[in-house]
Order: sequence, then structure tokens, then C-alpha cells
Amino acid sequence: MVRSTLSGFPELLPAERLVELHILDTLRRVFELHGFTSLHTRAVETLGTLAAKGETSQEVYVLSRLQAEKDAERTPNTLALHFDLTVPFARYVTENAGQLTFPFKRYQIQPVWRGERPQEGRYREFVQADIDVVGQETLPFHYEIELPLVMADALAALNIGEFIIQVNNRKVCQGFYQGLGIEDIAGTLRVIDKLDKIGPEATEKLLIDDVQLTADQARSALRLAAISGSDGGEVAEQVRALGVTNDLLEEGLAELSAVVDGVSRRHPGRIRAVLKIARGLDYYTGTVYETLLCGHEDLGSIGGGGRYDSLAKVGRRTYPGVGLSVGVTRLLSRILQQQQASRSVPTAVLVAVVDEETRNESNDIADILRARGIPTDVSPTAAKFGKQIRHADKLGIPYVWFPGETQQVKDVRSGEQHPADPHTWNISACDLTATIEAVGDKP
Amino acid sequence: MVRSTLSGFPELLPAERLVELHILDTLRRVFELHGFTSLHTRAVETLGTLAAKGETSQEVYVLSRLQAEKDAERTPNTLALHFDLTVPFARYVTENAGQLTFPFKRYQIQPVWRGERPQEGRYREFVQADIDVVGQETLPFHYEIELPLVMADALAALNIGEFIIQVNNRKVCQGFYQGLGIEDIAGTLRVIDKLDKIGPEATEKLLIDDVQLTADQARSALRLAAISGSDGGEVAEQVRALGVTNDLLEEGLAELSAVVDGVSRRHPGRIRAVLKIARGLDYYTGTVYETLLCGHEDLGSIGGGGRYDSLAKVGRRTYPGVGLSVGVTRLLSRILQQQQASRSVPTAVLVAVVDEETRNESNDIADILRARGIPTDVSPTAAKFGKQIRHADKLGIPYVWFPGETQQVKDVRSGEQHPADPHTWNISACDLTATIEAVGDKP
Repeated sequence: MVRSTLSGFPELLPAERLVELHILDTLRRVFELHGFTSLHTRAVETLGTLAAKGETSQEVYVLSRLQAEKDAERTPNTLALHFDLTVPFARYVTENAGQLTFPFKRYQIQPVWRGERPQEGRYREFVQADIDVVGQETLPFHYEIELPLVMADALAALNIGEFIIQVNNRKVCQGFYQGLGIEDIAGTLRVIDKLDKIGPEATEKLLIDDVQLTADQARSALRLAAISGSDGGEVAEQVRALGVTNDLLEEGLAELSAVVDGVSRRHPGRIRAVLKIARGLDYYTGTVYETLLCGHEDLGSIGGGGRYDSLAKVGRRTYPGVGLSVGVTRLLSRILQQQQASRSVPTAVLVAVVDEETRNESNDIADILRARGIPTDVSPTAAKFGKQIRHADKLGIPYVWFPGETQQVKDVRSGEQHPADPHTWNISACDLTATIEAVGDKP
Repeated sequence: MVRSTLSGFPELLPAERLVELHILDTLRRVFELHGFTSLHTRAVETLGTLAAKGETSQEVYVLSRLQAEKDAERTPNTLALHFDLTVPFARYVTENAGQLTFPFKRYQIQPVWRGERPQEGRYREFVQADIDVVGQETLPFHYEIELPLVMADALAALNIGEFIIQVNNRKVCQGFYQGLGIEDIAGTLRVIDKLDKIGPEATEKLLIDDVQLTADQARSALRLAAISGSDGGEVAEQVRALGVTNDLLEEGLAELSAVVDGVSRRHPGRIRAVLKIARGLDYYTGTVYETLLCGHEDLGSIGGGGRYDSLAKVGRRTYPGVGLSVGVTRLLSRILQQQQASRSVPTAVLVAVVDEETRNESNDIADILRARGIPTDVSPTAAKFGKQIRHADKLGIPYVWFPGETQQVKDVRSGEQHPADPHTWNISACDLTATIEAVGDKP
């Protein structure tokens, strides 16, 4: 990642951008293979729309026109940049519901902005890739199994090593807490969400001091949070062994098992029930997800999401859904340590120029190759051939083409050179576009 | 274009978004075929960077953190959204020059923002696609011929009907005006730029009243602006017939002829010297371009650009370049009246579900098809087959697949149904992805 001259706003060098493009293309390909359609929403929402999600609004960038009357009052109509892709999606669905077919499956890959304080060293602009399925009034449970399957396909296609999708189910927590007599369910979840950061002792203390749990309730909540496993039935048994039972808990355990077993079936080892996964946001009502990159757990979650029964409401109509998100920029920051592009340009062939008078001869050869789908550039100057070859080599362009009576093509890497006809010359698929390879693979 | 609930911020329905994606993919493909590499800059610049281009800064959106101390003074470090892709590109080149190889050819397709007053009905967020070649210290003239050739290839690939790239050369105007004894060259150009809007009489009056030209100078400037043609030599003769001559004018005429003739060679009828093309911006120093969509001249220019001798300066080092831009959103607003996507989802096959107990059987068929690159969805519910087929039809999905002992596939459009094996079934390339067709083509 190139140094950012504005803290929090990373930018890439051309070869790094090719790695990012490869990620974006791969995600798009997998999402489309699963029937998700592309959506792009405006970057801007009103504060009124963004504030519907309360607490996060403190990280919002507000817009004002440079020439407008200064110090304008902020109102619900004030414009601001979106801080995630869920709020704009919810707004879009309610505005266009009449013209959408439900269940509506969309993917959305866009930058989002957070008005973080500069010194915090966090991203203030970063790219997210979201998939959501949203229904009108109802949404079948099976999508809670399908969404992590799609995300697992996408992450596997990125070839970034192993990952684990950790799942929990809000009904399990809620049913269990209710069975313990806990009243402040949301407050308990918010504290449990901090478990990994602050440890069990501090969590227990917070549960007792802040959420007003009894010592027994707090210890039971922590025991539930300690359970994890990759076999749905075994996890359910461990929960039942804690001695709480009710319908909501059983419903949650059945769903949790179905998700773990359904995803394991296609992606064994890549899903795990982890009952401490709480996710802070209030609107989740069923399965919740958090994804870790194995060996890079320090990165934190590279994506998450969950089931919500009411993404949005219009009158009495509700839009339940389930969504998963992956933080592309966060992932990219790690991928760039492992992968690199084989060249810094899309170009596969550089056509040499003998002299400026015959540049059109070189242009014509380039056009023949381009018409055959081969990315081709023409040498910037009619310098000595050695200099033109070095220009290609510097950019990682694999072939240099020489015009003339008998046209020749040189493989810059091996130095081999052969006569060739631009209408029929064969280029290997590996050389046609920049490929992504492990860092250090290059000779 | 879907109604915009925020004036100036257009959004698309899914089928319209597929048309936009087709445009973006086509532009990218053509740009990459010509060896341009992708660049993506942050959305945000400092006011200091944006103000370097003076007058346009009045349309800028300034950012402030919602929770920051209110009414903070605006300084050169204040953040704002970019209003074009040229300023961020110039900033990026100077920041990363040490790690770029020159001439540097990049394309950049991103939204830009203009802080227009809401009532003006203009876009406040829109997508631009820019190509630029930038050199260090020098940049050969031949790129002034190549850039419009790339843009002509791109516009031709979009299949949106005919277009004309209108060109002029600043050296022609400057040489001619100097030959007339005019001192305020920039002022004269700025007024000539209004010729199409206000007509020749008002233009002449402004040249005399505001730019202080003599009546003779004003009339000669208007005579130059009246010249146009698609043969470089003939245009040069018409200019010379006005009786002004000097080296700068001759240099400009030679360049103008070379551009017109060089582009005509590959794209006959798609380039024209139009000597009233002035383009307001001060930084152009050679060829300037403006593109019109034939039959849609009311849209105004769908793109433009030109040669600049100093996009940016670092110390004594200058970065000359030549760039062309196309307004994707403006183009799209017209294309959506002519073209539509054959479906509103990427999906080619919907696998039916017999009952929820055998959903995995349908999922497995879908995975086999996906592994073969066929975008496939599984029916949301195990409704009656008639209802599942109607769901496919509503989305424009061409095929429904039925699981069972003997699997069958139905073409929803013809109603034909045949036994099929997901491992070997052949789908035509036309059905594999959504295609773009003329509006009204659908039966």
C-alpha cells in the first residue's frame, strides 16, 4: 500500500491496483455466478437517513457547498457520505420496492467513508463488498445458509489462504438469557461483544456492574460464550448441558446447527459455531457472521453480517434480509504482502517503432493484435531497439514486436525471437493479461 | 434513469445498472487493449490541491466531521470531494513520480462531485472515464493523434450510433490572435468558447467591449472560428486565406492537420477540425477535443480534453500530457433511451426446488453449473413449478432446470423442455450473460 499523503486515505501504485482489480473482479464473478445483481448507490445520503442507525453517525462526513452561506445549521436534509452500504441499500429498497422483484439479491462494491479523527490511523475511505438478500414481508431461512456459502466461494476464489466463518444465532443468546431471567438482552450482548478485547474477568465485572446481572447470570452468560465447535449437534448438546431450556433457544440451536452443517457440507472446516460472536448492532435477529483470515487473526474480522427481520419499514410493510460484507481494503492490505501482479500494465505486446516516419506501420500491427483481444502498446519513441526492449522490460510487458519485411516477436524474459504474423501469432493465456502470483515468485 | 430522491444524484434500477456495467466494462476493455493501466484515486483532496485550478472551486463539496468542533475555519488542509479526475491525477503523478514509468498511460473511471445549487437540475454526482498519457519533461506529439483514436475505438465499441470528435489547436488560435496584434489571448478564447451559446453578434460585442479588441480584430477572430473541415490540408488553406502568418500558427496548423488526417485514417468521418472549439480551461497548450453524439447534439459535449504542457510541476520538473474524458452518466442518460438489458439479473439458469427437504439436490445442480461458469440461482421457495417458472420469467432468466431422476431444462421463452445433464449441457454464449439490445427488440 503506497504511503498515504492524507492519513486514512490509502492509494495504490499501478501494479498494486492490478491486484485490487483482480480481487474486485473475482468477487463480482462469484457473486454473479450465484445470481446476485449489481447495485450502485449514490455516495451521499441525508443525515436523516444515516441517523436512523444512531450511534455510528458520529463517524460521518457532512458535506457543505464551498460557496454556500457558511455555518449552515445541520438538519435532517443535510448531505453526508455513507459510512456503510447497508443504510443506502435499505433506503434504495424502500424507494424502489415497486420496481424490484423479491427476494432481491444484490451485491454492491463501493467505497465508504468514516469521519475518524486523523490521528487514529484508521481508514477514512475504504472499499466494501456486500451481498444481501432481502424479501418483502418474509424471507426463507435457507438464505442464512446460502449467504456464507457464497462468501466462502468468493474467499476461496481469492486464493488468500484459509479462513473461518464464525457464526452464532441471536435466538440462542436471547433464549438463553431470557431463560436465566436476564432483562437487558441488548446490553448483555454489547458487553459480551467486548470479551475478546477485555477478557473474561473484566467482562464479568461489566455484566454485573453495568448491566446489573447477578453473579450467577454473568457466569452463565460467560459459559455460553465459551462454547464453540464445528459440529452443529455437538454444539447444541453443550448448550443444553448448561441447563437452560425454552422454545426460542431450541429454535436458535436448530438454525445454528443447520447453518454450520449446511456450510460444512460444501466448505468443510471453513465454518464454526462460536457463541461469543455477538456483533454490536441491534438489528440482527437470527444468524450472525464474522470472518477471520487464518494466520492473520490480528487483522480482526475481515467481514461480517447477519439476519435482520426488518432492514427497513414502509408503512406496515417490512423488508427482512440477510447480508454479509467483506472489507476489501483491509483484505488488500494483507494480500499485497502475499501477492503481486506479473506486470504493472495490462499490455502484453509492445510494438517497436523503427523511425517516426513509419510509426503508422507499427500502429497497424498493434491494431491487428488488439482486434484479436491482445492488449498492445506502441513504443513511445523510435529509440534504439535495446532501449525500447528495456522500456517493455521495466513495465513487465512480456513481448516486443518488430515491424519490417519479416516481422519478428521477442519474448523479453527468455530473449527468444521468432518470425511472426500478427493475424495468426498465438499468445498463451498466461501472458495475455497480468497474472497474480505469490510475492517472491519472480526470478 | 430512475427518479432521484436527491436532486442531482441519479440512481439506476437493476436492469439499467446492467447497461451501465456494460458501458464501464467496454470502456475498460478498450482502454486496456491500448495499454492504459487502471488508476483509482481517493475521493477526497485538500482545498489547497483543488484551488490550484481556481475558478472551478466554487462547485466543490467541503467535508467536515459531524462530531468535530463546528464552524471550523476552512484552510488549505480542509478536505473536499474531487470535482474532476484531472486534478487528483496530477497530484498522484507528482506524489508518486519516482515509482512510475514514463510516459505513464492511465485510465480512471470514478464518480466526481460538483456542489451545484440543487435547483439547477444538474448532476451533483456523476461518473467520468478519463484517459491520459503523461510524460516527464517531454511528451511526443504523436499521443495527440493516439488519444482520440483510443476514444473513437471506445465510443465505437459502445455501439451508440455515430459521433464526431471535434478538434482545434491552441497554437492556431494563439498564433492567429498574436498575428492580429491581440494581447489578451486567454480572454479572447474564453469569449469564443461562448460562441455556440450566445451567437456571433453577442460574441463580437463581448470581444470588443470586454476583451478590448478592435472591430477588425473581433471580426477576424470570428472568421477563424467559422472554419471547419475534415481534411487537414484544406482547413489549413482556409486559415492561411485569412492573411495572417507566423511560425506558431504554422506549427499549430501542421499539428491540427496531422491529428485530423491521422484519426481519419482509422476512423473516417469521425474527426473534424472545428476552429471555434476553445475549451475554457487555461492549461491547454496544443490540441483540444470535444466529442458530440450525432443526433444528440442537444446533450452538448459528451467528453473533451486536450494537450497540456504542464499538468503539474515539482521543482523544475514538469509533466506534460494529453488527456480525454467521457461523461459516462451523461452518455448513459441517452443510451438508456436506446438500449436495455435482456434481463435484470446476471442469472442464466434458475434451478427449481421440488420441496424444502430436497433443496440440497437443487443446490448441487446449481454448483455444477456455476463451476462451469454459468450464473445460476436456486428457486426461493418450493412453490408449484408454474410459480417458479413465472419468477424466472419476471427476472428475464432464460432457463429453468428441474431436478429429479431425469433432469430437464426448460427454455422459458420458447417453452421447449429437454432432458439435460448439468455436467455437459450447452448454453449459447448469447444466453450466458445479460445482453444489451435495442429498446423495443423484446417480443
